[in-house]
Amino acid sequence: MDFLSHYLTEIETELAKVPFPQKPVNLYDPCKYILSLGGKRIRPALTLIAHTLYDVDHKHSIPAALCVELFHNFSLIHDDIMDKAPLRRGQPTVHTKWNETIGILSGDVMLVHTYKLLADHYQGDQLKKLLDIYTKTATEVCEGQQLDMDFESRVNVTVKEYENMISLKTSVLLGCALKMGAITANANAEDADHLYEFGKNIGIAFQLRDDLLDAFGEPGKTGKQPGGDIIAGKKTFLVIECHQIANVEDQRRLDKLLHGDASDKVEQTIALFEKYKVKELTQKEVEKFQTLALEHLDKVNLPMDKKKPLLDLATYLLNREH
Amino acid sequence: MDFLSHYLTEIETELAKVPFPQKPVNLYDPCKYILSLGGKRIRPALTLIAHTLYDVDHKHSIPAALCVELFHNFSLIHDDIMDKAPLRRGQPTVHTKWNETIGILSGDVMLVHTYKLLADHYQGDQLKKLLDIYTKTATEVCEGQQLDMDFESRVNVTVKEYENMISLKTSVLLGCALKMGAITANANAEDADHLYEFGKNIGIAFQLRDDLLDAFGEPGKTGKQPGGDIIAGKKTFLVIECHQIANVEDQRRLDKLLHGDASDKVEQTIALFEKYKVKELTQKEVEKFQTLALEHLDKVNLPMDKKKPLLDLATYLLNREH
Repeated sequence: MDFLSHYLTEIETELAKVPFPQKPVNLYDPCKYILSLGGKRIRPALTLIAHTLYDVDHKHSIPAALCVELFHNFSLIHDDIMDKAPLRRGQPTVHTKWNETIGILSGDVMLVHTYKLLADHYQGDQLKKLLDIYTKTATEVCEGQQLDMDFESRVNVTVKEYENMISLKTSVLLGCALKMGAITANANAEDADHLYEFGKNIGIAFQLRDDLLDAFGEPGKTGKQPGGDIIAGKKTFLVIECHQIANVEDQRRLDKLLHGDASDKVEQTIALFEKYKVKELTQKEVEKFQTLALEHLDKVNLPMDKKKPLLDLATYLLNREH
Repeated sequence: MDFLSHYLTEIETELAKVPFPQKPVNLYDPCKYILSLGGKRIRPALTLIAHTLYDVDHKHSIPAALCVELFHNFSLIHDDIMDKAPLRRGQPTVHTKWNETIGILSGDVMLVHTYKLLADHYQGDQLKKLLDIYTKTATEVCEGQQLDMDFESRVNVTVKEYENMISLKTSVLLGCALKMGAITANANAEDADHLYEFGKNIGIAFQLRDDLLDAFGEPGKTGKQPGGDIIAGKKTFLVIECHQIANVEDQRRLDKLLHGDASDKVEQTIALFEKYKVKELTQKEVEKFQTLALEHLDKVNLPMDKKKPLLDLATYLLNREH
């Protein structure tokens, strides 16, 4: 992803410059801390890339890019509290380093700050359009997180429901990041919408592939514990798909396996996946969303060579092993 | 407050109509629940009143009024989690009725929804002005809440620091509510700012008087346990003022009293307050902010009879016993 590196450097510089007040330190230090932990910065990069499709000077898109990255980090602070996660990117989570109260409040002020970035740097019709897509997306991300929690205690979640949940929880923000870049560059509405759909569908494909890699990734390459989702009894796409097509006996076996702690839990679950060709079905589903994404990219009214950075980014996201 | 009653009825009707989606129920039911618990609705009433100073048709100010009330309710959901409060207005708090995770997330989506109300109903310069004052205020409320928590574990808090904290935590939202009503009615910037300062200073006076009533209110009239703040060892204005002027021996006595649980804790603390004329000093401070508020109201460039509802509201707020 060499073509991205100069964007990423700039994003880090700009994130470090976000003018949080000095005081109260217990409110703003956690905001600076979470931003300092790094991350792939894919979302703000998408905003910058989308903007430069229409306008070589990307400066005007930076506050929108920061808005999206700050939102992502706000959601990490609050999600980590909800998940009782001790670590984030190998470092203590905000509520572990400080406490839950500080985590809630610094997340809140960070969310407010995302709107400050928009209100301070855009105006008129552009501000209105940015607020519309951003507020819709922020709402959907909350809905996705709630659905994810609801699904934990539900028995029959359908494939369609699962795909809707991951779309809301993680993918719409990728679409939003691209659309905001299109808006800051005054792209036409059709292009902005196609870019949104491209981002959203790449996001869904990425998430499904992430589920796939847990069970079928090459050990050592993914950087994660192989079968970690299975061990945790997580309702991934593979589990839901398998459950949906298995016979009653195998449905029960799968449930028992996931909720139990057999020593060969991972192997047995994967054997069930193989029996029902879940790997192939999931790969087909990844390809379906990938194709959908590329169809939307195709409809963006620009020469193909212009759109190459987005194609490269999609290829990169859908081929990485972790 | 008869003149307010038709506003209050309308606010309740409009709050019940806020179009939260049906699903996920665990995300939106808590939002509807907290709004259904009632409250004085002073903040949205202020927005409507400010608007009608300049424009008899107050309809255009309703989304801004709802924005302020939703923000207040978002902050109640999150504050109740932080304070581990079991009850709100005599009913279970959101995190008690559901759980903390749902409390955090439904608060988040409610905060996002406040911005939706603004972005959906205002545009251009008006939208920009509303976003500026609202975002500034929302940030300050978070800062005030953090300072309040910081003060709990600090030994020497000054009167000035305390007044700054209550101003941020509660009073700026009253100023903001008024200013937003002025903005929706296209009032001039000077008037909008004077209305803001009027609201903010009335808010500080109200809060200081609330501290005063705890120790010196007429029992039975306040609706609160007399001396409840003293029993809880709360750092009210009275405690901070007393601590600031008492001799070293009495400072120690006050600290010991507040952190202990002597059977005559309330009587002994009040005796100390009386020794140092803390009641009179606090009354003077209330009057100082009240006067400041009225000076700003006086500077609002409208005939005095027009401003009477605000004068009545200030009188009402600063004479109520609870």
